[in-house]
Amino acid sequence: MGLGGYGTRVAEAMQSCKRAKLVGVISGTPAKVKTWQAKYGIPDKNCYDYNNFDQIKDNPDIDAVYVITPNGLHHDEVIRVARAGKQVICEKPMALNARQGQEMVDACEKAGVKLLVGYRMHFEPLTLEVIRMRKAGEFGKIMFFQGQCGFRIGDPSQWRLNKALAGGGSLMDIGIYAINGSRYMTGLDPVWVTAQETKTDPVKFKEGVDETIQFELGFPDGVVASCLSTYNMNYLDRFYLVGQDGFAELQPSTGYGPIKGRTQKGTLVSSPLTQQTIQMDAMAGIMLGNEQPPVPVDGREAVKDLKVIDAIYKACRTGRREALNLSS
Amino acid sequence: MGLGGYGTRVAEAMQSCKRAKLVGVISGTPAKVKTWQAKYGIPDKNCYDYNNFDQIKDNPDIDAVYVITPNGLHHDEVIRVARAGKQVICEKPMALNARQGQEMVDACEKAGVKLLVGYRMHFEPLTLEVIRMRKAGEFGKIMFFQGQCGFRIGDPSQWRLNKALAGGGSLMDIGIYAINGSRYMTGLDPVWVTAQETKTDPVKFKEGVDETIQFELGFPDGVVASCLSTYNMNYLDRFYLVGQDGFAELQPSTGYGPIKGRTQKGTLVSSPLTQQTIQMDAMAGIMLGNEQPPVPVDGREAVKDLKVIDAIYKACRTGRREALNLSS
Repeated sequence: MGLGGYGTRVAEAMQSCKRAKLVGVISGTPAKVKTWQAKYGIPDKNCYDYNNFDQIKDNPDIDAVYVITPNGLHHDEVIRVARAGKQVICEKPMALNARQGQEMVDACEKAGVKLLVGYRMHFEPLTLEVIRMRKAGEFGKIMFFQGQCGFRIGDPSQWRLNKALAGGGSLMDIGIYAINGSRYMTGLDPVWVTAQETKTDPVKFKEGVDETIQFELGFPDGVVASCLSTYNMNYLDRFYLVGQDGFAELQPSTGYGPIKGRTQKGTLVSSPLTQQTIQMDAMAGIMLGNEQPPVPVDGREAVKDLKVIDAIYKACRTGRREALNLSS
Repeated sequence: MGLGGYGTRVAEAMQSCKRAKLVGVISGTPAKVKTWQAKYGIPDKNCYDYNNFDQIKDNPDIDAVYVITPNGLHHDEVIRVARAGKQVICEKPMALNARQGQEMVDACEKAGVKLLVGYRMHFEPLTLEVIRMRKAGEFGKIMFFQGQCGFRIGDPSQWRLNKALAGGGSLMDIGIYAINGSRYMTGLDPVWVTAQETKTDPVKFKEGVDETIQFELGFPDGVVASCLSTYNMNYLDRFYLVGQDGFAELQPSTGYGPIKGRTQKGTLVSSPLTQQTIQMDAMAGIMLGNEQPPVPVDGREAVKDLKVIDAIYKACRTGRREALNLSS
């Protein structure tokens, strides 16, 4: 669902998948549907638009729908897919806020379908190697995480800079990698957050659309994280994890690859695989084979990230430390 | 003045100096004085202790005194040196707070002597190359600085963990590099600060002795910095400067060397010179030849850093953004 830039990238990557297959499309643009049908051999009966896609419930070709539309549409679309009895993968951020996210989780549970979230990095080999090393104690007690995520965004008319569709600015789109990364890199959920917002271009970044946010997270046992989210700088794609006995650096850390990494033991060896190919095969295994992912990628995980996002925006407004409780 | 670990390092480095020469010592430990006399050929008439060093005013061999004692002693010692009519280099932090620092500046001005501060990095070649590139506009408009400074401190009985002598903890000793670095890397003075203190070991890091502080600085035109100061982690010695057209990374950034660096144009070529040798020769030129350093290293610069330190500690207490005005 959604045949834009990222949808196109996923479709291309899926051509190399062994367990996942692109069999249908949902789009509001007939010309795009025609192009995709020709390119990927999709029959007419598997093509839908935003008015009629509830009919997928009667289509046995379709096991799951990957929702890759603007953030503000996810909530309603995911719930419609769930009610059609199909599994869902929803692109991140899963929703505009934690309340919406919880409603989506509840709807999918009620419908008896799985809800996964497009967390690409949860299947990326270097990321998983760092997580393995952390779990094996190779960094010692974890102390600090730094996540720097950003890029200079182009076209000011795109939906990502529209508050109603994006729900915010850089934090929703790219800062969420640092939030999510802080959790899978440390293996912990944050208990407090502070944040500072800075805007240099209020024409491009309108009210409610954040340009740059610095945020700091506190975890149990004094573990801390310092993060940057920005739509106005390039050269920022770095995760850094520090333990009492070692460190891990991923730089780039969340780009489409190749990810590069090093630890106190040396350079990590990159994988030539396309991230989205690995992700879609793994998600097919989770949805169809009931496999367990190495790091959770379900809707409940996404609600945790959304709670952190809500708290960061609140901390920007209040200027104070905001408490977090992700387990309730 | 002060024949401890760092004093010993400076003395060794000075053996390669062309313009600076070690000609005397001030110490409270006669055995150390004997050792240094033998090693560096220092005559009895140039040896002083903390009771009688005011007599250096009558010693034409001595042009300047480098004060390398615990932070809490700098204020009184520097003022005594100034009153003896000798130039002063004071190790950083110059004092325990900005008020003390201003008194030292005023005393040196009144006495007509120069007051320099042991800012090693201000003469380090890679650091100066990054500053040159920034001034030449090679990074474009500066947007962001990140300074990560820390190490796991050892012996819990050392003066650096004594509030009365150190004036604080990691921020006074190692975090100050990030503060000072944020200013010489961006070329700007901060206008606000926020900060978060975390303590995991209250036995080792007693009341008033900070273990880990994250702090964020705001500069004019929306430039921001994210910094970390810690006494409880290794693997942290990185400066990162981001402009709209490029970046500079120094990693390590403030260790004794060699500093390593890269920018969007490639790797920076390291210097094999000892930092303290370069520093002491340059400071001899400033004090005796009235030369101008590429980056200011005088007491007024140190007062600016102390104002930031005062504000960071205040922000840790209040939990709020604290305004800064370094020019008044």
